[in-house]
Amino acid sequence: MVKESKQSGGLEWRINVPNETTSKVLVPESKSQIRVCNGLRGLIVGFVSRIWKFFQKAWSIAVREPKKAIHGVKVGMALSVVSLFYYMRPLYDGVGGNAMWAVMTVVVVFEYTVGATLYKCVNRATGTFLAGALGLGVHWIANQSGEKFEPIILEVTVFLLAAATTFSRFIPTIKARFDYGATIFILTFSLVSVSGYRVDQLFELAHQRLSTIAIGISLCIITTMIFCPVWAGNELHYLITNNTEKIADSLNGCVVEYFGINANVNSKGEDSDKVFQGYKCVLNSKATEEAMANFARWEPAHGRFSFRHPWNEYLKVGVLLRKCAYCIESLNVSTNSDTEAPDFLKKHFSKYCIGLSSSSSDVLKELAVTMNTMTKSTKIDLMVHEMNNAVQELQGALKSLEKQPIIKDSKNGTEEGNKSSTFIVPLMEMVPIVSISTLLTEIAARIEKSVEAVNELANKAEFEEGTKKSKQNENQQNSN
Amino acid sequence: MVKESKQSGGLEWRINVPNETTSKVLVPESKSQIRVCNGLRGLIVGFVSRIWKFFQKAWSIAVREPKKAIHGVKVGMALSVVSLFYYMRPLYDGVGGNAMWAVMTVVVVFEYTVGATLYKCVNRATGTFLAGALGLGVHWIANQSGEKFEPIILEVTVFLLAAATTFSRFIPTIKARFDYGATIFILTFSLVSVSGYRVDQLFELAHQRLSTIAIGISLCIITTMIFCPVWAGNELHYLITNNTEKIADSLNGCVVEYFGINANVNSKGEDSDKVFQGYKCVLNSKATEEAMANFARWEPAHGRFSFRHPWNEYLKVGVLLRKCAYCIESLNVSTNSDTEAPDFLKKHFSKYCIGLSSSSSDVLKELAVTMNTMTKSTKIDLMVHEMNNAVQELQGALKSLEKQPIIKDSKNGTEEGNKSSTFIVPLMEMVPIVSISTLLTEIAARIEKSVEAVNELANKAEFEEGTKKSKQNENQQNSN
Repeated sequence: MVKESKQSGGLEWRINVPNETTSKVLVPESKSQIRVCNGLRGLIVGFVSRIWKFFQKAWSIAVREPKKAIHGVKVGMALSVVSLFYYMRPLYDGVGGNAMWAVMTVVVVFEYTVGATLYKCVNRATGTFLAGALGLGVHWIANQSGEKFEPIILEVTVFLLAAATTFSRFIPTIKARFDYGATIFILTFSLVSVSGYRVDQLFELAHQRLSTIAIGISLCIITTMIFCPVWAGNELHYLITNNTEKIADSLNGCVVEYFGINANVNSKGEDSDKVFQGYKCVLNSKATEEAMANFARWEPAHGRFSFRHPWNEYLKVGVLLRKCAYCIESLNVSTNSDTEAPDFLKKHFSKYCIGLSSSSSDVLKELAVTMNTMTKSTKIDLMVHEMNNAVQELQGALKSLEKQPIIKDSKNGTEEGNKSSTFIVPLMEMVPIVSISTLLTEIAARIEKSVEAVNELANKAEFEEGTKKSKQNENQQNSN
Repeated sequence: MVKESKQSGGLEWRINVPNETTSKVLVPESKSQIRVCNGLRGLIVGFVSRIWKFFQKAWSIAVREPKKAIHGVKVGMALSVVSLFYYMRPLYDGVGGNAMWAVMTVVVVFEYTVGATLYKCVNRATGTFLAGALGLGVHWIANQSGEKFEPIILEVTVFLLAAATTFSRFIPTIKARFDYGATIFILTFSLVSVSGYRVDQLFELAHQRLSTIAIGISLCIITTMIFCPVWAGNELHYLITNNTEKIADSLNGCVVEYFGINANVNSKGEDSDKVFQGYKCVLNSKATEEAMANFARWEPAHGRFSFRHPWNEYLKVGVLLRKCAYCIESLNVSTNSDTEAPDFLKKHFSKYCIGLSSSSSDVLKELAVTMNTMTKSTKIDLMVHEMNNAVQELQGALKSLEKQPIIKDSKNGTEEGNKSSTFIVPLMEMVPIVSISTLLTEIAARIEKSVEAVNELANKAEFEEGTKKSKQNENQQNSN
């Protein structure tokens, strides 16, 4: 109990409550009551420790990603400003009781990224306007057709439009770009066409609703874009760049660990384990990538990105990275398999496998640098060439196994030196090495495709050319 | 043009428009005008064909998944009913102008699955109630502290609560269960505490808002649960069952195709290709599975599922299936590799590999049947045992390669009969077979884990025991 209250700090007063209750109830000192008290105490302690953990988690999120905490502050700020409309006489007189719509707009429309906020703003404005106009039109037609038919016409149009619009939300193109707009369309159309039956000043209502929504929307856009903006495009850019680096680290770490530079790796402990598992984030990042690309389309030019930055190309790179991650998943299986390859075989192949994995991860890291700096790499072709050479060498090593039995080198041997002899490696013991080699070769092929995708991105997004120095080198090479 | 109008059918009148324009404009017969006309015609044709394609897509979705079309009809129905509140005098007098909130609730809360609708209903009701109570409390406190401090207190509380609640939406547990409730909480609190400054009959407002929301919510729940309900739990159940079958088909198809029963497979053409690619759906179904499991928690007992059906266990099975899918992805790489294994080696291994893949896919299909019928399988242990035997046989075949070079059987040989001889297989040509064997072994291991997960699910969900017949067999076996 004391420990708990020390831990919880500011929450101490909550913990004192059960103590007081306990001292009161304990007077008759019956066992069942003590049991009840203990049970209650346990419940409360459990509850408090749960809340405590919740706050710890919240705090750790806020520390790790202060942007998210700032987003909370931004929403609070926007809401405080919009509620000023109620307190200030002149503002209130201008907008009237409809200020409610401004508050509602801010709450519903304000999203974490600028792109998502703009998407919702545009959808809300368009949906409201279209539905409002259509609602007025239908209302006018219904009005002309006599009192008897008016509610019937209105009911039928509400039914048909609501059904059609709701269904349209299942169509992928609508879902991706106008999902929120469809909801708002149904909402506004129902409200206008239905309430029009009672409210006489329908035009004034529509006008007021539109203007309050406009106030809410412009407030949201200003707040989200001026104070520490979080751009969806930026997030997508860094997500893909980070994923590229993660794949590079996982690939290299996994191979290096297997081929026995164990001492160095193990000393790093959990950190290195985190690095190896990095590819798992890539396996599951599809949904985030697509959402970000969707929102990024709505964003204006910002930072280094123009308005029509080719966000779709990032998705293509993302898909190819994920394909690499699938292979690394299998690679992890092979390196953790029960069948242990003999040490001398591992030593023989470590050169080729580590060579290939490090040149592959170099290519990936160069891709990450290319995307990060938005500068076309002058080295990438050379690096891909090196990677392909490493593939050839590995294949050569595999081929040479069949022709020329491996001879353990007695020069390097210390303990094993005396056993130096010529013999054929048993097949079963070669299985892991063969699998790892196949997978590394496949990963290299997939990385080459990623390089093409990044080149495509670089061309479409008009990345800068590489440094002059390397250009001069190229020119010299050409002239030679 | 004629072709287009034939294709578009009902849209023909739209296409006639440019023709008329053309004939009028063509009088001066200048080339630039013709060009403009052609451009316009192209634009309109493009536009119409786009709309046509859109409708075709919508139609195909409606035919493939009529549930989605029915959902549209349900929303239309609920909205028509709720708008009756405006047209019928007695209902209108009861609820007043606040009927708007009922319409709004229906539009915003009505979701595709029952679980999602219930999640939103509960969140909306709880959020509105909590925020309303808190708003009234804060308003009372602000009221007591004098006219000067009132707006300041209100502003500060709005700011703090909005910021804190918005931030809390980033915490995973809140995000999963109360995301919508948090939005509604902020919305209602701002509206109540702010509008309270002007509206005198605050309690009446709160009461009316709550009752209209209650009307909207109950209408949604009734409509969604009575007319063709789509249960999230059911969807999750069938998603996982289907995924299991897809993995089984892909696994078997992929191996059978590689080991040369090509003639049969190719004749099936696209259909079989679709089957092989089934595992790709599994790779990307994580987000859907989690959303469904999240919504299923809110659903009452329905069909064969009780209220506290262990939905989380389905997620565990899903994760393991995805791990199998990663391996099948690599398996596909190996079977499509450029290095071709020699035919006789393929023939030698086809028995073992197809044996393992078919027994693995049998196990998966049995798992699918177990989940589908919700009956514990009596055969599954035997099947897993068979699968493990197949693994041992494959490993044995691999091991035997090293000891005893493969002899091509001259009895079976027709063309190759004359070449009958003893020789060692070159390593490089064995690489695909070795990789495929490793992957099949790993897939078998992962399937065994899936079996455990399904058993766990069967225990927690209290699946029925297998048929009596098989029980009797078991008893006989035990007594023997």
